[in-house]
Amino acid sequence: MDANFLKNLLLSAETKIVMLILDGLGGLPRQPDGMTELETAHKPNLDVLAKRAALGLTIPVAPGITPGSGPGHLALFGYDPLQHEIGRGAMEALGADFELGPDDLAARGNFCTLDADGLISDRRAGRIDTAEAQLLIDRLMTITVPDARIFIQPVKEHRFAFIIRSHDLHDALSETDPQRTGVAPLPLRALNSASEKAARLVNLFIDQARENLKPYSPANMVLLRGFAKLPVLPTFQEKYGLNAAAIAIHGMYRGVARLVGMHVLDLIGNTLDDEFDALERHWNEYDFFYLHVKKTDTCGETGDFEGKVKAIEEVDASLPRLFALKPDVIIVAGDHSSPAILKSHSWHPVPLLIFSPYVRSDGIAEFGEHSCSHGSLGTIPATQIMPLALANALRIAKYGA
Amino acid sequence: MDANFLKNLLLSAETKIVMLILDGLGGLPRQPDGMTELETAHKPNLDVLAKRAALGLTIPVAPGITPGSGPGHLALFGYDPLQHEIGRGAMEALGADFELGPDDLAARGNFCTLDADGLISDRRAGRIDTAEAQLLIDRLMTITVPDARIFIQPVKEHRFAFIIRSHDLHDALSETDPQRTGVAPLPLRALNSASEKAARLVNLFIDQARENLKPYSPANMVLLRGFAKLPVLPTFQEKYGLNAAAIAIHGMYRGVARLVGMHVLDLIGNTLDDEFDALERHWNEYDFFYLHVKKTDTCGETGDFEGKVKAIEEVDASLPRLFALKPDVIIVAGDHSSPAILKSHSWHPVPLLIFSPYVRSDGIAEFGEHSCSHGSLGTIPATQIMPLALANALRIAKYGA
Repeated sequence: MDANFLKNLLLSAETKIVMLILDGLGGLPRQPDGMTELETAHKPNLDVLAKRAALGLTIPVAPGITPGSGPGHLALFGYDPLQHEIGRGAMEALGADFELGPDDLAARGNFCTLDADGLISDRRAGRIDTAEAQLLIDRLMTITVPDARIFIQPVKEHRFAFIIRSHDLHDALSETDPQRTGVAPLPLRALNSASEKAARLVNLFIDQARENLKPYSPANMVLLRGFAKLPVLPTFQEKYGLNAAAIAIHGMYRGVARLVGMHVLDLIGNTLDDEFDALERHWNEYDFFYLHVKKTDTCGETGDFEGKVKAIEEVDASLPRLFALKPDVIIVAGDHSSPAILKSHSWHPVPLLIFSPYVRSDGIAEFGEHSCSHGSLGTIPATQIMPLALANALRIAKYGA
Repeated sequence: MDANFLKNLLLSAETKIVMLILDGLGGLPRQPDGMTELETAHKPNLDVLAKRAALGLTIPVAPGITPGSGPGHLALFGYDPLQHEIGRGAMEALGADFELGPDDLAARGNFCTLDADGLISDRRAGRIDTAEAQLLIDRLMTITVPDARIFIQPVKEHRFAFIIRSHDLHDALSETDPQRTGVAPLPLRALNSASEKAARLVNLFIDQARENLKPYSPANMVLLRGFAKLPVLPTFQEKYGLNAAAIAIHGMYRGVARLVGMHVLDLIGNTLDDEFDALERHWNEYDFFYLHVKKTDTCGETGDFEGKVKAIEEVDASLPRLFALKPDVIIVAGDHSSPAILKSHSWHPVPLLIFSPYVRSDGIAEFGEHSCSHGSLGTIPATQIMPLALANALRIAKYGA
């Protein structure tokens, strides 16, 4: 289905859609016959909603493929994650809460240690602590490069996001990290002629960084990799006719939402309550709300089964606030699975719930991996969520006579 | 799967396939926990058939997309409805029971009212009644255009189908309806050079129509839009090796069946019984029968839940006549859903039943939306029905050694 097909069928409407994303929602049981995190959680509101909803499972990218947060979210938003890629550098910058613009080229950066011969002796500079790294970053931020601006955002320990802003930068660039010790950092090379300007400017920065950091062993050099600009995507307004808002605490999700043209709402604090406060405060201003919950994934990635259960229960306890707003369509989904027993993202299909007055409900009074596998939506690509949400919001006209 | 793949595997056989289409079959319950029209219906024959059949749900066009009758039927017949489009004018002419041929260019027409300055004051000419419109249509039919024939078929009130027949007409044409009042009708423009002849001939007709209708306010002018020729499609004989017959009362369905090369059977009356009479009368002459039931959709579109239930029950009561013929394969399906609570076509997947001696039956003794969502066929594109029907009719050879 090509992009214009749906666009040509869009109807204007007053209906409101809420997409509630529990990051890393899908899980696995701790014992073969046990229950997953979601199935273990006491979640009366989600279960009541499930009974009136259509259930299914989503495949974010492709069967067997474990998605990162970028591809997982692009799929949820209806953009083919195999066609539109958000490069690693751009994700790092978004994650570091940097508002990447169209003139920005970003990379993953880290401090490393060079020995007396200029060869890398430690690719992670002894994992210096974050505060120490901040001092060195302040130093690097004083470096100037003609016709460009440099931004460096600390990430954690030796890691940072590097951004260079100038006109006409392209991201077909090699990496300076040779991925092993005992050799010198690599010079940055342009992989096509359009990227030569970027290579030249970044190498100017690197040369000065080497001079600046000389006295600061073990963090006496930087390595840069994963150079990427943000892709240019049609906005939610263009693609779906939706005036969309994003409610998310972490930079990466705020950044991906901004990328698809959502207005990212300011939060007063950084709790789930603050997110629901923002939803209530801005309810009359938008057609579509993306509300992102991070804790489910954080617990999944650290192997904290009970913590993930609790995170789901917290979301459930907040749902009456959502119901009180009477959205026309409620989507509850995840960008990927993060089973605590795997301590990582995984390839498993992700539970999906679609509620509206016009959904053909399955009558299954439980929102869980097994119950969703019996739902009428089936196991579908996550990119199908948005057309289904729009249909349930009565925002798509009939195709053909 | 490309068209030739299946074609190269076709086997000749004596088996017979019946595709029974209940238009707008899929529905929704009136209350969240209630039953749909199909689930409410007392339908012992369909339920017995379901127990011996494989069940599933079909998506006619794409998830979330509400199909018109044209795309819905093309999908049932195995033609990708996104690839093959039947334009609005062509559908209007088929619906008005006009046998469109390859030299025919059709449009949706209607009478409108022009004021003294020639500006449109009413785009629907006060919705004049059908009998009055017929008199004006008779008048318009006297108009002659060089090298062409004009046909006008009444539809309802101010609406009619306009057909012009000549060699080398193309349908890349603008519309004469400006979609608002207070402005003059637009001249018809060719949107490419191949369509210039058509634009010239139709404009000749329009000029004469204006003169002819001058005294007949409020219906003193015509507006034409949705110009379309029929697409050229491979026939059922070419695509499937099937000698196919169509049994349908309404022009639109007879027309779409004719388009795919089915022989459209004459009916003696216009009841369901008359349709089954035709099936029995011609049983020995064809390999494939498409039998169309309209009332399910009519009731769905008018919001008549009970009427739709009754229409399904009437079909069920006729099924012993079908069983007595001992078809090798029986398909029961719909071209789209038409839930009474929506009073329109909808995007919801449509119940599907495939019966044959070789089907892997699900043993589910109920034909309904929820039971079909548990069927072994899954939720599949409607274009997969025909390959499955042919396989069950033992009409497809093994692929590869």
